[in-house]
Amino acid sequence: MTDHRQHAVIFDLDGVLTDTAEFHYLAWQQLADAEGLPFDREANEQLRGVSRRDSLLLLLGDREVDQDHFDDMMERKNELYLTSLERMGPQDALPGAVALVIDAKRRGMKVAIGSSSKNAPFVLDRLGLTGLFDAIADGNSVQDAKPAPDLFLAAAQMLDLAPDACIVIEDAESGVDAALAAGMTAVGIGPKARVGHAHHRFLTTADVDLARILPCDEARLEQGPVLSDGWVVVDDHHDPGQIVNVATSHLTGNGYLGYRGTLPEWGRDATVGCTVSDTWDNADGKWSELCNVPNGLFATWEHLGQPIAVPAHEVTSDRDLLERRLDIRYGRQHRRYAPSQGPIRQLVDERFASMDERHLLAQRQRVFAAPGDRLTFTSGIDGQVWSLNGDHFAFVEPQIHDDALAMRMNTTERGLPIAVAQVVRIRGGQVHAERVIEDERQLLRVMDVEVGDDGVVIVDQVMTVYSGNDVEYPLRESLAVARAAIDDGYESLLARHALAWDALWERVDVQITGDQLAQTVLRYNLYHNIIATPMHADHLPIGARGLSCQAYQGAAFWDQEVFNLPMWVHTVPEIARNVMIYRYRTLDGARRKAERLGYAGAFYAWISGDTGDELCPDFFFVDVLTGRPIRNHFNDWQIHISPDIVCTIDGYVRVTGDHDFVAGHGAEIVFEVARFLASFVYYRPADGLYHLIRLLGPDEYHENVDDNVFTVEQTRVALAEAITLYGDLQGNDENRLNELRETIGVSDEEYEAWKEIHGSLVTIEPHPETNIIEQFVGYFDHEDTTPDALKTRLQDPNEYWGWPNGVAHHTQVIKQPDVVQLFVNQPELFGRDIIEANFDYYLQRTQHGSSLSRPMYGLVAARLGRVREAYDLFIKGSTVDLLADHNPMPGGTFIGGIHTAACGAAWQVAVLGFGGVHVRDDHVEVDPRLPEQWEELAFGLSIRGCWLRVHARQDEIELAVDASSPGPVTVLVHGRSTTIEPGDTATTPVDLATELAR
Amino acid sequence: MTDHRQHAVIFDLDGVLTDTAEFHYLAWQQLADAEGLPFDREANEQLRGVSRRDSLLLLLGDREVDQDHFDDMMERKNELYLTSLERMGPQDALPGAVALVIDAKRRGMKVAIGSSSKNAPFVLDRLGLTGLFDAIADGNSVQDAKPAPDLFLAAAQMLDLAPDACIVIEDAESGVDAALAAGMTAVGIGPKARVGHAHHRFLTTADVDLARILPCDEARLEQGPVLSDGWVVVDDHHDPGQIVNVATSHLTGNGYLGYRGTLPEWGRDATVGCTVSDTWDNADGKWSELCNVPNGLFATWEHLGQPIAVPAHEVTSDRDLLERRLDIRYGRQHRRYAPSQGPIRQLVDERFASMDERHLLAQRQRVFAAPGDRLTFTSGIDGQVWSLNGDHFAFVEPQIHDDALAMRMNTTERGLPIAVAQVVRIRGGQVHAERVIEDERQLLRVMDVEVGDDGVVIVDQVMTVYSGNDVEYPLRESLAVARAAIDDGYESLLARHALAWDALWERVDVQITGDQLAQTVLRYNLYHNIIATPMHADHLPIGARGLSCQAYQGAAFWDQEVFNLPMWVHTVPEIARNVMIYRYRTLDGARRKAERLGYAGAFYAWISGDTGDELCPDFFFVDVLTGRPIRNHFNDWQIHISPDIVCTIDGYVRVTGDHDFVAGHGAEIVFEVARFLASFVYYRPADGLYHLIRLLGPDEYHENVDDNVFTVEQTRVALAEAITLYGDLQGNDENRLNELRETIGVSDEEYEAWKEIHGSLVTIEPHPETNIIEQFVGYFDHEDTTPDALKTRLQDPNEYWGWPNGVAHHTQVIKQPDVVQLFVNQPELFGRDIIEANFDYYLQRTQHGSSLSRPMYGLVAARLGRVREAYDLFIKGSTVDLLADHNPMPGGTFIGGIHTAACGAAWQVAVLGFGGVHVRDDHVEVDPRLPEQWEELAFGLSIRGCWLRVHARQDEIELAVDASSPGPVTVLVHGRSTTIEPGDTATTPVDLATELAR
Repeated sequence: MTDHRQHAVIFDLDGVLTDTAEFHYLAWQQLADAEGLPFDREANEQLRGVSRRDSLLLLLGDREVDQDHFDDMMERKNELYLTSLERMGPQDALPGAVALVIDAKRRGMKVAIGSSSKNAPFVLDRLGLTGLFDAIADGNSVQDAKPAPDLFLAAAQMLDLAPDACIVIEDAESGVDAALAAGMTAVGIGPKARVGHAHHRFLTTADVDLARILPCDEARLEQGPVLSDGWVVVDDHHDPGQIVNVATSHLTGNGYLGYRGTLPEWGRDATVGCTVSDTWDNADGKWSELCNVPNGLFATWEHLGQPIAVPAHEVTSDRDLLERRLDIRYGRQHRRYAPSQGPIRQLVDERFASMDERHLLAQRQRVFAAPGDRLTFTSGIDGQVWSLNGDHFAFVEPQIHDDALAMRMNTTERGLPIAVAQVVRIRGGQVHAERVIEDERQLLRVMDVEVGDDGVVIVDQVMTVYSGNDVEYPLRESLAVARAAIDDGYESLLARHALAWDALWERVDVQITGDQLAQTVLRYNLYHNIIATPMHADHLPIGARGLSCQAYQGAAFWDQEVFNLPMWVHTVPEIARNVMIYRYRTLDGARRKAERLGYAGAFYAWISGDTGDELCPDFFFVDVLTGRPIRNHFNDWQIHISPDIVCTIDGYVRVTGDHDFVAGHGAEIVFEVARFLASFVYYRPADGLYHLIRLLGPDEYHENVDDNVFTVEQTRVALAEAITLYGDLQGNDENRLNELRETIGVSDEEYEAWKEIHGSLVTIEPHPETNIIEQFVGYFDHEDTTPDALKTRLQDPNEYWGWPNGVAHHTQVIKQPDVVQLFVNQPELFGRDIIEANFDYYLQRTQHGSSLSRPMYGLVAARLGRVREAYDLFIKGSTVDLLADHNPMPGGTFIGGIHTAACGAAWQVAVLGFGGVHVRDDHVEVDPRLPEQWEELAFGLSIRGCWLRVHARQDEIELAVDASSPGPVTVLVHGRSTTIEPGDTATTPVDLATELAR
Repeated sequence: MTDHRQHAVIFDLDGVLTDTAEFHYLAWQQLADAEGLPFDREANEQLRGVSRRDSLLLLLGDREVDQDHFDDMMERKNELYLTSLERMGPQDALPGAVALVIDAKRRGMKVAIGSSSKNAPFVLDRLGLTGLFDAIADGNSVQDAKPAPDLFLAAAQMLDLAPDACIVIEDAESGVDAALAAGMTAVGIGPKARVGHAHHRFLTTADVDLARILPCDEARLEQGPVLSDGWVVVDDHHDPGQIVNVATSHLTGNGYLGYRGTLPEWGRDATVGCTVSDTWDNADGKWSELCNVPNGLFATWEHLGQPIAVPAHEVTSDRDLLERRLDIRYGRQHRRYAPSQGPIRQLVDERFASMDERHLLAQRQRVFAAPGDRLTFTSGIDGQVWSLNGDHFAFVEPQIHDDALAMRMNTTERGLPIAVAQVVRIRGGQVHAERVIEDERQLLRVMDVEVGDDGVVIVDQVMTVYSGNDVEYPLRESLAVARAAIDDGYESLLARHALAWDALWERVDVQITGDQLAQTVLRYNLYHNIIATPMHADHLPIGARGLSCQAYQGAAFWDQEVFNLPMWVHTVPEIARNVMIYRYRTLDGARRKAERLGYAGAFYAWISGDTGDELCPDFFFVDVLTGRPIRNHFNDWQIHISPDIVCTIDGYVRVTGDHDFVAGHGAEIVFEVARFLASFVYYRPADGLYHLIRLLGPDEYHENVDDNVFTVEQTRVALAEAITLYGDLQGNDENRLNELRETIGVSDEEYEAWKEIHGSLVTIEPHPETNIIEQFVGYFDHEDTTPDALKTRLQDPNEYWGWPNGVAHHTQVIKQPDVVQLFVNQPELFGRDIIEANFDYYLQRTQHGSSLSRPMYGLVAARLGRVREAYDLFIKGSTVDLLADHNPMPGGTFIGGIHTAACGAAWQVAVLGFGGVHVRDDHVEVDPRLPEQWEELAFGLSIRGCWLRVHARQDEIELAVDASSPGPVTVLVHGRSTTIEPGDTATTPVDLATELAR
C-alpha cells in the first residue's frame, strides 16, 4: 500500500501553475523596443524555460554590450516584468493548476514550488496560492539553475523527504532534466519534443492525473462506491433508483448552503437542490422548511438539438462511461462522462460550494471535442426547483445582464427576499451567437459554441445566493459577488476554498493508518458533519439532514447536541459555542412551547428552526397502509431534548473550561430547563418518588412510556447542573445570579424545589439477576421477539414500525438503544458487567431503524474492548449514506438526505470509542483500543485551550501538546497519568492486547 | 285508543281452562255402578254444562228416589269427584288456557274466574293457577246459577268494573246465556250449535285470540317492528341480514340463561344460541367467554323429505306468512308461519326461558294440517353450537333414554361439566315409528307422526341445562327437571313462569299512559335489563350483552354499576345487593389486577367475569384497514370502573339505607378502591395538585388523556366515601375497623393520605366565558369537527373510530359524553347554566358510538325540561336493539347482542329523567317533566324499605306509600315538601308547563 504521506509533488511555477510568458514577452518587448533590438512573439517562443541571462543573450543575438549595460538590461527587464506582474492576479493561474496542487494535498502528499524564478514568492502571492504550499524553493534558494538538480533537491530537503519520494512537474526541457538529475520522478507538461524524456507526460496542467503516477489505494465498499486514498468516494454505478441517495452522498456545502451531488444538466426530477440555511418558509401550511433555491449551475450541451447528458433514468455501470466522484477533503463533486455517441468525446466537470465565500458555488466544465465542432451550450438559472412542500417562491423576477443572469424572489409565507446570480466564462471555444430565454422560471442563456483548436472548451460558471437574512440587498450582493468571482477565476476560488478546508481539517481530521477503507468512511462522515454545521453564525442550528435537502426541515433535533456537537466541542470549540448560542437565542421559542403545553421554563423544540418554536407537526408520518397521517408525539413527549442540551453544555464546559459561556448564556438555558423539568415531573405518593410520565425516549418505536431510563438520567444530570450552578453563583457571582433573578425570576425556592426533586427522582436499577436495565416501565412485559421476525409481519416495506400501530410498538424490538445511549452519554454511571449485559441484550432487539443506533453500539463496543464488533458496527453505522441502501420515503414522508447525526457519531466512535477519550474535570483519559489492522489512529483534541495531538499505535501512544497551548495537559493512558507541557511530546508504550483483555 | 286496563276477562273454568268432564264422568260412573243405574260415556255427554242436581236427575231418568237418598247421592257423587280430583294436576290445564289468561293480563286486563262449581278454588289450586287471577266467583258466591247473570256480575263487582267492560269466556250454552244476560261480551268455545249465540266463537281455548275481540293498540316503530299494546314487539319483516339482530331483540331469558329469538328449525348459522351464565371458558386462547350450550329446543318438520321451515336466508315481508312476536311481559317468543306449500297450513309456536325454574326452557309447537297427514318430526339436542371463539366442549357424550335425550360435556379449558336434557310430548297426532340419530354432535329423535282428527298436532318440548357450577350432578339434574317439567305440562310451566314475572313487574314496571309506543319501547328495555341480571345469585355479574350471546364475554363493565343497577337499586334493592356482592366476591381479582399493574388496592377489571380477573385482552379490536389487532387500553387505563363501583355503593346506601351492607361488604371494596386510587394518583409539584394521568374515560375514542373530568369527579366521590366511612367506623364501629385493619391492613396513615389527596385533587372548572367543561386536558385543542364530517373520512364503514388511528381520535368528536355523564352521576355538582351549555356543546360533537350516549343526553335533557329533545333522545336511545340498525361486526369483532346498559338507562331516563326522581339523604325529589302526549307516568320506588308509588300526570302528582312500609316518606315535589305516612296517598297539583319553563 502506498502511503502518500511519504511523497511530495514539486511544481515548477511558470508554465505549470501560471503562465508568465506573456508578462515576460511584454517586458522583453519593451526592453527590445527601447534598445532597438528586433523582437516579436515568434522570437519570444525561443525563450521558454530559458533563464533571464540566457534569454537576454538570445535577444542580443550578435550584438555586443558591455557587462554594465548587460546588467542594466537584465535589471530593466526584470523591473519591466515586475511592473507588468502587478497586473497579474488570481485569474492568471493556469486551468487545473490549483486542482492539481490540492489533488496532491488530498492524497496526503506534501507540495512545494521548485521555480528558478526569483519572483516566485511574488507570483504565488499575486495568484493567491502561497498558503497552499509546504515549501517554496526559488531562484534565491540555490546557485545552480536548472537543469542542475539543486533547486529540486533543496525543495526535497525543506520537505524532509528523500529525492526518490518526490515528483516534479515541469513544462520545460531543462526542468525535466533537473528532475531526472535529482533522482526524482519527472512529469512533463507539453509536447513530446520538449518533455518527452520525462517519466510521465501530459498535454496541459489540467490533464495531469496523479493517479497515473502514483496508483490510488482503492477499495470498493460492499456493492457501493469505491473508496480511494482516504479522501475520495467514486460512484461508477448509476442507478435511477439511487439518484436521490447518491446526490445526497455527494453533497457539497459549507454550512450556509448545500448543493446536492447531481449533474449540471439535471432538473428537479433528479432532486437537484441547493438548500440554503435560514430561509425557513411554510408554503403549503404543512410545515416550515428551508428553501431549495433556483439552480444557477444549470448547464446543458447539445449537438444538432440532441442533448448530451447522463440520462438520469438509465442504468450505467461502467467507470469508463460515467464516473462521479466526491472529493471529501475539498468538498468537490466530480463527474467524468464519455457519451456513447455525438461529437463530445468527454465531459468532465466539477463543482464546489466555497468554504471561503459561503454564498458562492463554482463549477467548471471541460468539453472534449474536435476543433471546429459546433455545440449548443445552455446555462443559467433553473427556477423549477425541487421542493418537498409546496412552492416557496412568489414574485420571481428575472434579471438579464450582458454578463450575468439573476433571479430574485420572495418566499411565499414570510416574504423573505432571495436572489440567485449566475455568471459564465468560456475559454477554448468561440461563441458565435447567443440569446436569453425566459420560460417557466427558467432563465437561460443559449450559446452557439465552436470548439477551438485545442479541442477543449472550458466553461466556468459561478452561482451566488443571498437572502434578506444575510444582507440588505440580496440581488445586488449576489450579482457583485458572482461577477467578482468569475473575474478572480476558478483557480483562485478553488485555492481559497482549499485553504479554508485545510484549516478545518487541521483540527478535525482523524487519521487511520493501515485501513484506507475505514479512513475514507470516517472522513466522509466528518466531512458531512462539517458542512452541516453553520460555522459562520451563532443563530442557526445543525439540521438533522444538514443542508442536504429540505427533509427534517433544516432544523435541529437532539442530534445536534448529542451527535453533531461532540466533534466540535473537542476540536473547534468556538463552533460548538456558536451552535450552543443558537440554543440560547431560541430560548423564547422553547419557553413558548413549554407554556403552550402547560409547563414552565424551556421545553426545547423537537424540531427547532430559527425561532426555536416547535416545528414538528402533530402528524408526521403517513400510515402507508391506510394513507392516514399518524399522530406521533415527537413534539410533546420527547422531552429529553431539554436535558440533553444542558448535558451538552455541561460537557462543553468540562472540555473547554469556558465558564464565561455558562455564566453568560448557559445559566439561562440551564435554569429554564430545570424549571421546565420541575414542572414536568410528577410525584407518586405510592412510592415517594418523582417520575417522568408519558415520554418518548430516543427509541421512537415506543411512545407514551414512563421513566424512560435515558430521559430520567439526563434529567438527573440537568437538575444537578442547575443545582450546582445556582450554588456556584450564590457563592461566587451573586451579581449574575441577581441579574437572573430579575430577568428570568429564578429564586431560592426554585433551587430548593430542584434539590427536592433531584433527591427523590426515580432510579431505575439493573435487574438484580440479569443486570438488564429496563428501558422504560413495562418494557420487559412486551413481546420478546426480533427485528427479523417483525419484518415478516410487514404488509408494506415502507411501513413505519413504531407508534401507534407499527409492528414493533408492542414488542421489545427497539429502533435504537436508549440504555446503550445512556452508556455513551454518561459512561461513568455503570460498571462493565452491566454495560456488557445490556449491550448484548439490547443489540439483539435493536432494529437500527435510526442511523444513530449502530454508532452508539460501536462506541460502547469499542470501550468494552470488543473491537471487532465495534469495527463492524462502526463501518455499518458510518456507511448508511455511502451505501445508500436506505429508503428515502418510508411511511410516505421524504426523509432522505444525509444522516448528519450518524456523521457526527462517527467521530465519536473513532475518538471516544477506539481512541478511548474521556475528558474529565482535571484530566483526559485516553484508552485506545484499536482494530488489529490499524497501525495508527491519530487525532487532535482541544482541551481547555490546549491542543493535544494523539497518535495511538498498537504498541505505544504518542501525545503531543502544541507549543501554543496555555499550559500542560494531564493524560491518563490506560490508567497511567502523564502530564505534558506545551511543545512536549510523551510516548507511552502500551500493550493493547492486554488492555483489550481487561 | 282502548285502555285495556279498563277491561276484564271472566273465565269459566270447566271446559275453558281445564276439562273436569273426565273426573265427573268417573264419579258419575262410580255412583251409577253403585246404584245400578245405566251410564256410559255417551250418556255422560248429556251432562256438559249441566249442574250436579240436574245431572243426577238426568242420570236417574225415570227412577224415583227420596230426597234423602237424592241428597246422599249428590253428596257421594261430589265426594267421588273430589277424590278423583286429587289426581288432577297442573298437566290438566287445557292447551292454551294459561296462555289465554296471561294474554289478557299482559294487555293490562283484569282476569277473574266465573265458575258455577263450588270446587273452583280447589281445582284452580290443583292446576296451580290460583295466583293468576284477580278475582274468583264460584258456586259459593251467588244463589242463582248460570244461565242467571249473577255469577258474572259478582265477578265484575269484585273487579270493580262495569259489566260492559267484561268479556266472558264460556264453553257452555248456559254460560253464554248468562254472559249475555249480564250485558257482557260473550265468547264461546265450541261448536256453533252450542255457543253460536255468543259475540265471538272459537273452536278451542288455544284458538281464542283476544286481539279479535279487543283490537290491539299497535304502531310501527319507524321501519322496524310493530309495537303493540305496551307489551309486544311484532317483527313481520324477515331479512337475512337482520337474523342476528332480531334474534337478539327477541331474546328470552331469566338471568341464568338467555335463549336467542331464533326459530326451532334453525342452526348455528342463524345464530341460534343458549348462553348460560357462569360457564366461562377460554377455548382458543383468545379470551374467556360464556358457553352457548347445545340447543335442546331444536325441532324440524318434514313432509316427504321436504323441510317445513322459515328459510333463514330469504326475505319475507308479510305478516300473514310469517310473524315473530316477543311478549315482553312474559318473555315469550312467538312465531306464526304459514308455509306457502306443503300440507302444513300453519306452524305456530312459542318458547320461553322459565323465570320460575331458571334451568328450564319450554317450547310449544302447534302444527295445523289435514287429519291423516303424515309428517316427519325431528327434535332433540343440536350440539353444533354457534361459538364466537373456538369449540368450548370436549368429551361430548350423548345419552339416549326412551323418554328423554341428554348431552353431557366438559368445557375445553376448565373442564366444567355441562348437561343439557330434552324431553318431548306430542298430542293430537299418532307416532307410528321413531328412531334416534346421533350425528356430529346432533342427538335427534325422528318420528313419523300422523295428524289426528283435530288437525292440530301439539308438541311440547322442554330443555334443561345445568353446569357443575350449579349442582354436583348436572346430567342427573337436567334429566330429572326436564322429566318433571314435561309431566307438569306446558300450561303449568307457563303459569308459574308468568307468576314469577308478575312479581318482578309489580316492582319494576313503569307505566306511560297516552303513548303506547313509548310504553312498549320502555318496557322492552326494562325487560332486557331484567333478564340480563343474575337475580338468583350473588356471585355473578350483569353482562354488557347480558346473556344474549357470547359477545363482551358475559362479563361486567362499568355498565353494570352505572346503567344496569340504578333500576334495581330503586325497585328491587335485594337484587342490586346481590350484584354488588359479586363485586365483593371478585375483590381478589381486582387486587391481582392492581398488583400486576403496579398499583395497590383494587383495580377492578374492565371486563369482569367470575373471578374478577381482567378478561379484557390487550388487543381488542382489529383494524379493518390493515387486519392488524389494535391495542386498546380499556384494560389498564379505564380506571373509572373502580370509583364507579364505590359511587354505586354510595348511591345504593343512600336509596336503601342498607348500612349493614357497607359495613359487611362495602367497606372492603371502598377502602381497597381508595387505596388503589391513592396509588394511582400523581402529585404535580408545578401546581400543587393531584392528577389522574393516562386515562381512558367513558368516551373511548380518546385514550391516554389526563384528568378526564368524569374520572376525576368519580374519584373525588370515591375518596370522600372512603374517608367518611373510615371516620364513621372510627367513631361508631371500632371493632369492624379493627377487623379491617387486620384483614386488609387499612390504617390511619392511609386514611390521612386519602384526606390529603382528596383535599388537593385537581378540579376542572368550567371555562369562564363559555361555561364548557373540558372533557380532559387538551380536548379543546383537538380539531373541532362533527361526526358527519368524520364519516366522510372513513375508508371502511366498519372502522373503529377511536384510538389509536381512528377518524375521531384527534378531533373533538366523542363516542359518548363524559361531561354529560357526570351530570347524570353527580347531578348536584353543577348549576343549570353550566349543564345546559355543556349539553349543547357536547351533543353536536357526539357520535353516539356507544348505546350509552343518547340515554344520558335524554336524561339530562329531561331534567333540563327540554322535554321534546329528551323524548327524541329517549326513543332513539332506547330503540338501538329494537330497530336493529347497528352493525354487529364493526372492526371485525362480533359485538352483537342486547345493549343491556342502554336498557338499564331507559329506566333512568324515564324515572330519573322524566320522573325527575333524585333520592337524597333524607327525602326524595320528584320533579316530573312529561312529554305533552303523556297522560301519566307511573312507577314505584323502594326508598329505605318503603314502597312509594308515583303517578305523575300533567296537572298533578299522586304519591302513595304502601301500607307495609316501615315509616313515612318525605317527598319534595318541584320543591314542595310532603310527608306521606304508610298507607296514605298524597296528591299535589302541579303546573308542568310552568315547571318546564323554569
